[in-house]
Amino acid sequence: MNIILKKIKIETKPICDLIDITKDVKNALAETKLKDGIVCIHIPGSTASISTIEFEPGLVKTDVKQLMEQLIPYDRDYAHHQTWNDKNGAGHLRSFLLKTSLTIPFTNSELILGTWQQIVFIEFDEKPRSRTIYCQFIGK
Amino acid sequence: MNIILKKIKIETKPICDLIDITKDVKNALAETKLKDGIVCIHIPGSTASISTIEFEPGLVKTDVKQLMEQLIPYDRDYAHHQTWNDKNGAGHLRSFLLKTSLTIPFTNSELILGTWQQIVFIEFDEKPRSRTIYCQFIGK
Amino acid sequence: MNIILKKIKIETKPICDLIDITKDVKNALAETKLKDGIVCIHIPGSTASISTIEFEPGLVKTDVKQLMEQLIPYDRDYAHHQTWNDKNGAGHLRSFLLKTSLTIPFTNSELILGTWQQIVFIEFDEKPRSRTIYCQFIGK
Repeated sequence: MNIILKKIKIETKPICDLIDITKDVKNALAETKLKDGIVCIHIPGSTASISTIEFEPGLVKTDVKQLMEQLIPYDRDYAHHQTWNDKNGAGHLRSFLLKTSLTIPFTNSELILGTWQQIVFIEFDEKPRSRTIYCQFIGK
Repeated sequence: MNIILKKIKIETKPICDLIDITKDVKNALAETKLKDGIVCIHIPGSTASISTIEFEPGLVKTDVKQLMEQLIPYDRDYAHHQTWNDKNGAGHLRSFLLKTSLTIPFTNSELILGTWQQIVFIEFDEKPRSRTIYCQFIGK
Repeated sequence: MNIILKKIKIETKPICDLIDITKDVKNALAETKLKDGIVCIHIPGSTASISTIEFEPGLVKTDVKQLMEQLIPYDRDYAHHQTWNDKNGAGHLRSFLLKTSLTIPFTNSELILGTWQQIVFIEFDEKPRSRTIYCQFIGK
């Protein structure tokens, strides 16, 4: 049994930017040489999330953006804005709702994912960011 | 320390079908003979989710269906439908929001769950499906 | 590799009470003397959740409460209320949506968290509760 931490660095765009990180996580898993276990994929921060989706343009460029805007509109006057004088209250709420970590099992050195299931990072902040995603692998 | 993968096979109904898989996960845990650890319960795919709920008819047959329909209506014209000419855009968005995996600890060979807390699979696709849920146990 | 279970006991207020448990989880990690691994933070029950947020008054006292009330209003007549004659149907649905567990990695004996990211317990039940949160640490 071993524990191996891998980092994925990405550059993001603001508000609701989905980035497919499946290949990065697969490459990290290959580097660990682990065969069976789990990986906890986590973004430290309070304005981003990790989830999975079929990464096709309809969902990624239109549907998810409309969903998040409908559930938690960005241009609303949140109480959070009075604390720091910024405008990313919706980004914090979206991250709170979708959460910053996701745990996925792997077996025979392969992530257990559906054929059309990709792992995505979602940027919810109001500005472009340089982000470091942490993948904690536990396995053997 | 050991890692043991168990599979649970279920048949589902479309749109918003909740299935109580608590007994299946408990049986799988018993088969592993592990005493202490965690289990990552994961459905590979992009139109289903895993969560927990008190599995009683009011919540399962009415309230959850109404909630999901209110947050992400099924009969809306999602951009996703133009990609594959299917009608399950809402299923993808619901799975994205609720996520496909859940990690639960166990101790003394028992899952740590509330008295009225059951583990549920939720089918969000537009057609009945045969699903395989993966339970990755890590423990000793 | 080791597995160590720690408990955090808290007293909560009803409906939508956010409690910062970051220090408790950090203290528990320190007690384990583990350096690298993951912690699965889990509340057994069906009317509460675990997530992360920037724990500042605007978000905690106003924005999250308004969000949850908008997504899942508390004073609606849910089918769940007919089962037990209680009024906490919204609490169950909120817990179902936000889930009861969160897994976070740690390295060099420190939780991997953003500068403004705190771990929060959220009470969604209709009455004050005494709650025990379980932290299952796996690491070395």
